[in-house]
Amino acid sequence: MRYVIKFSYDGTLFSGYQLQPNKRTVQGCLEEALQKINNGKYSSVVATGRTDKGVHALEQYAHLDVDVNITPYKLKRAFNSHLPDDIHVIETYEVDNDFCVRYQVISKKYEYHLNMGEYNPMRRNYCYQHNYALDIDKMKEAISYFVGVHDFRAFVTENVLKENCVREIFEASIEHDSFYPEEIIFTFVGNGFMRYQVRNMVGILMKVGTGKIAPSVVKEILDSKIRGKHGSRAPAEGLYLKEVHLKNNKMVNIN
Amino acid sequence: MRYVIKFSYDGTLFSGYQLQPNKRTVQGCLEEALQKINNGKYSSVVATGRTDKGVHALEQYAHLDVDVNITPYKLKRAFNSHLPDDIHVIETYEVDNDFCVRYQVISKKYEYHLNMGEYNPMRRNYCYQHNYALDIDKMKEAISYFVGVHDFRAFVTENVLKENCVREIFEASIEHDSFYPEEIIFTFVGNGFMRYQVRNMVGILMKVGTGKIAPSVVKEILDSKIRGKHGSRAPAEGLYLKEVHLKNNKMVNIN
Repeated sequence: MRYVIKFSYDGTLFSGYQLQPNKRTVQGCLEEALQKINNGKYSSVVATGRTDKGVHALEQYAHLDVDVNITPYKLKRAFNSHLPDDIHVIETYEVDNDFCVRYQVISKKYEYHLNMGEYNPMRRNYCYQHNYALDIDKMKEAISYFVGVHDFRAFVTENVLKENCVREIFEASIEHDSFYPEEIIFTFVGNGFMRYQVRNMVGILMKVGTGKIAPSVVKEILDSKIRGKHGSRAPAEGLYLKEVHLKNNKMVNIN
Repeated sequence: MRYVIKFSYDGTLFSGYQLQPNKRTVQGCLEEALQKINNGKYSSVVATGRTDKGVHALEQYAHLDVDVNITPYKLKRAFNSHLPDDIHVIETYEVDNDFCVRYQVISKKYEYHLNMGEYNPMRRNYCYQHNYALDIDKMKEAISYFVGVHDFRAFVTENVLKENCVREIFEASIEHDSFYPEEIIFTFVGNGFMRYQVRNMVGILMKVGTGKIAPSVVKEILDSKIRGKHGSRAPAEGLYLKEVHLKNNKMVNIN
């Protein structure tokens, strides 16, 4: 039987999502839990995408096959009893045997959290500690250039460049956090993001915020399709995969 | 020269505030940093009180003596460069040589964070994961009995009982967290709290919230001055020392 799991994780102590030998990864922990549920038989867990070391996910989806006869309600409980306390399965769904989450993604929402105020030890793994004020108005002007269909080649790191770097960003905004007033949140909603793309976009926006470059330079870099000397990547700990929207029409909530 | 430092810490990776041999403690880290600043000479750091293993502090004060000639602005920077990333000195104040923070406390505010919703891996060290709904109205009735001058003997664990357990609680409330809507925050403001007192009060309130005891039983236990069979302690990770109010009239902000 094929299932989809909706899950969340704290990326702090993981070497990223993707399985790597001798590293603690989210995929590795999920597959280990699944193997226990499947009485020792290995089976893969396929997520909609990856996140890098230190990046968090509040909502991610994966599909997987369960071999044993287990009531739907108990599958979620079985996962959570076998998973470490920094990963959690939120819901489980029954799907057809040929269902693949990768083909179901309509859009993803990423958030980047940055602290402009005093260093906060409680938040050291959950936002980037910039600890200086940034010019929000100028960054808001700059972030608007990302909205629309663009070739985002200039915001992908050279060694992960793909042939097709055209993606659509539906929304891009900057807001103050209501709970931590000195933190700001960059939000990006798009039909797909390449590796490092969000952190590279935030990196350039920080250069606008500190006054190193004018907002219009962001548009110039985007149009030039060349990463160039202003290329800069924001640290991992501020990045969250916030939401993944699936077509969802074939998923049956079994809780 | 004597200084007061205002500081914060994430309690997750500490064996509490107080110095203990071969344990990682907040006091130990502060004194180690101070020793480096004082060119190797040991000098003690005296805080307004202690917190237990896993308990956080968003605001705490301590006094300490600095032997070397250092500009005030650099003292804060020197501390933060020598401290690990889960402690942070927020401000430094110049005080008289006989100033003691312990005699300056007017009140302290503690918060206890509890998640009634789905388990959240990002919050595993920052709130108690109860993961079930509690009856807020009944707990609100029960918490009101704590306000005022009382002998809190029934809420202090036996092996730390002091002769005088009379304290005043000025405010006690329960509210929903604005950022994490499924979390609730218990707030207590008082002129002093004994070891385990807040966690023992929250422990009994949780018994009210789950319907195990009626709100009036909290008043009966308080009046009886006996801990008794309903004694229960909430876990450390939900507790925050939120604010410490000092008389403050002798402190000169040197930043």
